[in-house]
Amino acid sequence: MTLRNHQFRLAARPVGAVKRTDFNYVEEPVHSPGDNEVLVKTLYLSLDPAMRGWMNEGKSYIPPVALGEVMRAGGVGKVVESKHPKFNAGDFVYGTLGIQEYATLDGKGLSKVDPSVAPLPVYLGTLGMPGMTAYFGLLDIGKPQPGETVVVSGAAGAVGTVVGQIAKIKGCRVVGIAGGKQKCDYLTQTLGFDAAIDYKSDDVKKALRQHCPKGVDVYFDNVGGDILDIVLTQLARKARIVICGAISQYNSTRGVKGPSNYMSLLVNRASMTGMVVFDYADRYPEAGREMAGWLKSGQLKTREDIVSGLETFPETLLKLFSGENFGKLVLKVADA
Amino acid sequence: MTLRNHQFRLAARPVGAVKRTDFNYVEEPVHSPGDNEVLVKTLYLSLDPAMRGWMNEGKSYIPPVALGEVMRAGGVGKVVESKHPKFNAGDFVYGTLGIQEYATLDGKGLSKVDPSVAPLPVYLGTLGMPGMTAYFGLLDIGKPQPGETVVVSGAAGAVGTVVGQIAKIKGCRVVGIAGGKQKCDYLTQTLGFDAAIDYKSDDVKKALRQHCPKGVDVYFDNVGGDILDIVLTQLARKARIVICGAISQYNSTRGVKGPSNYMSLLVNRASMTGMVVFDYADRYPEAGREMAGWLKSGQLKTREDIVSGLETFPETLLKLFSGENFGKLVLKVADA
Repeated sequence: MTLRNHQFRLAARPVGAVKRTDFNYVEEPVHSPGDNEVLVKTLYLSLDPAMRGWMNEGKSYIPPVALGEVMRAGGVGKVVESKHPKFNAGDFVYGTLGIQEYATLDGKGLSKVDPSVAPLPVYLGTLGMPGMTAYFGLLDIGKPQPGETVVVSGAAGAVGTVVGQIAKIKGCRVVGIAGGKQKCDYLTQTLGFDAAIDYKSDDVKKALRQHCPKGVDVYFDNVGGDILDIVLTQLARKARIVICGAISQYNSTRGVKGPSNYMSLLVNRASMTGMVVFDYADRYPEAGREMAGWLKSGQLKTREDIVSGLETFPETLLKLFSGENFGKLVLKVADA
Repeated sequence: MTLRNHQFRLAARPVGAVKRTDFNYVEEPVHSPGDNEVLVKTLYLSLDPAMRGWMNEGKSYIPPVALGEVMRAGGVGKVVESKHPKFNAGDFVYGTLGIQEYATLDGKGLSKVDPSVAPLPVYLGTLGMPGMTAYFGLLDIGKPQPGETVVVSGAAGAVGTVVGQIAKIKGCRVVGIAGGKQKCDYLTQTLGFDAAIDYKSDDVKKALRQHCPKGVDVYFDNVGGDILDIVLTQLARKARIVICGAISQYNSTRGVKGPSNYMSLLVNRASMTGMVVFDYADRYPEAGREMAGWLKSGQLKTREDIVSGLETFPETLLKLFSGENFGKLVLKVADA
């Protein structure tokens, strides 16, 4: 039997929002693994805001996806066949599988995951890159102290939910900014945030003043744009802003909106620091163990928004930018 | 003899550039010092970009100058009469004298200066607030390491000249950005900068690429606006941006231009941190001693642009914003 592999390959550099025509949907035979290679069947793929940046040309923290290349994506899969000493058929693994049904890989950056610790999609969210991003961005750069006020935007997303919950574990007052009543209720009622601000219906500045009477000590920014600018007006002395992303700007065709209130950094002796999760790769196991402990004790809750069908990829990805997803957005490709 | 005191009092909140009509030029009798007070005759006044911010209403790092109040300014003067135990007639002092000929003060924040160590105007520049700003901003926030590349804007100004020279003392490659050939020549030929970029005639981006082939490790920003945005495109990994000022934006009536390339902070894991020199007040003596040593050894050179006549104040202040001054801008009010 020759296995067939369906793939989304990048066909064009998107202008503004991603469209189906920016990809070619291709079918090709599965490549059998050579020596020291492993064949993985994709089960779940991670859809992340950062993917939009990878489609652009030009220097960034990793090279862009080349035209014609399979679209880059992290995923969880099952080893079908292995000629690699570290992996056996039947192993569950996390790696950069790409938007395709099968990946033939050299094992670099591939790691085993244990479905008895957490359901497989959790390895794409809280125990995956978003969780690592939250953990290191908040603790290493935000450095929240007990009693401080932590604000996070994109609060109901894969990174934001973890940021807020870890900040609560560390004894902070936590305020989330998210879109819609349902998400805001989830933050305060299920995740234990002290307050949630609905940017779609609340006056964000007024609400920040109300919920952060002593100012914002740590702001974990996933969205950029107007919300970053508003939070800048509410900083406490020596505030730390973690620049994790700017989803509001990724599809902009008119250039990025810079934070015009950045001089608040001077007035408040505050800092704004960028972070890229890959820098912490050698500490992922440490963070993973601690977060698995919090999952087990119930201090950390996860939520995944799982959409089925590889072929829905371009449209499903757009849910991230419309704010439609609720929890970590995962594309289910196959059953285990 | 009743001494008369001429003063500039703030009459209106300026819109855009400062105008003479934003002040009242007032004559009043000199107030004799009461117990624990000291009467100081103003000799030199410091004109600084930050003064523009103090004229605006609203929260900042210090309260705005109130309407009707004598315009705030640092200055060096001579004690005429003292009922304060720490000061005697004939002492030379630095303090917040204000734009006036005589100041009656309670001695708080007033410190003696020694004209045998440096000429009096130097206490408003290299040995005053601009020098302290340069010293602590560069060393405490920029944290330059030997061999790193330091870029400073407003490089021929009171802060910039000191930043660049200290960076050279610390073994860095130093590139200054200034306006005009004369200033650029001064930076490279007199102060020993490795390169100077004339923002009025050079392609700043291209010149930065040429002079900072390994990228910018430390950027000390005095100007904001387009130059900040360009430097953001040339950061090295883990770069530190010190936000000291944004003179290009202070007179803007269309709002501040935010740095639209701020996501370079993320790509380069870089930081942008604001500083206010007053936070370092308890360390001024330490910095003053070290800088006086460098002055003596010739490692640190100073340049003052001295304009005579209290009554020229509003127009002289404007030289800062047109970039007309060359060196620390000082208003000479009287002979010692």
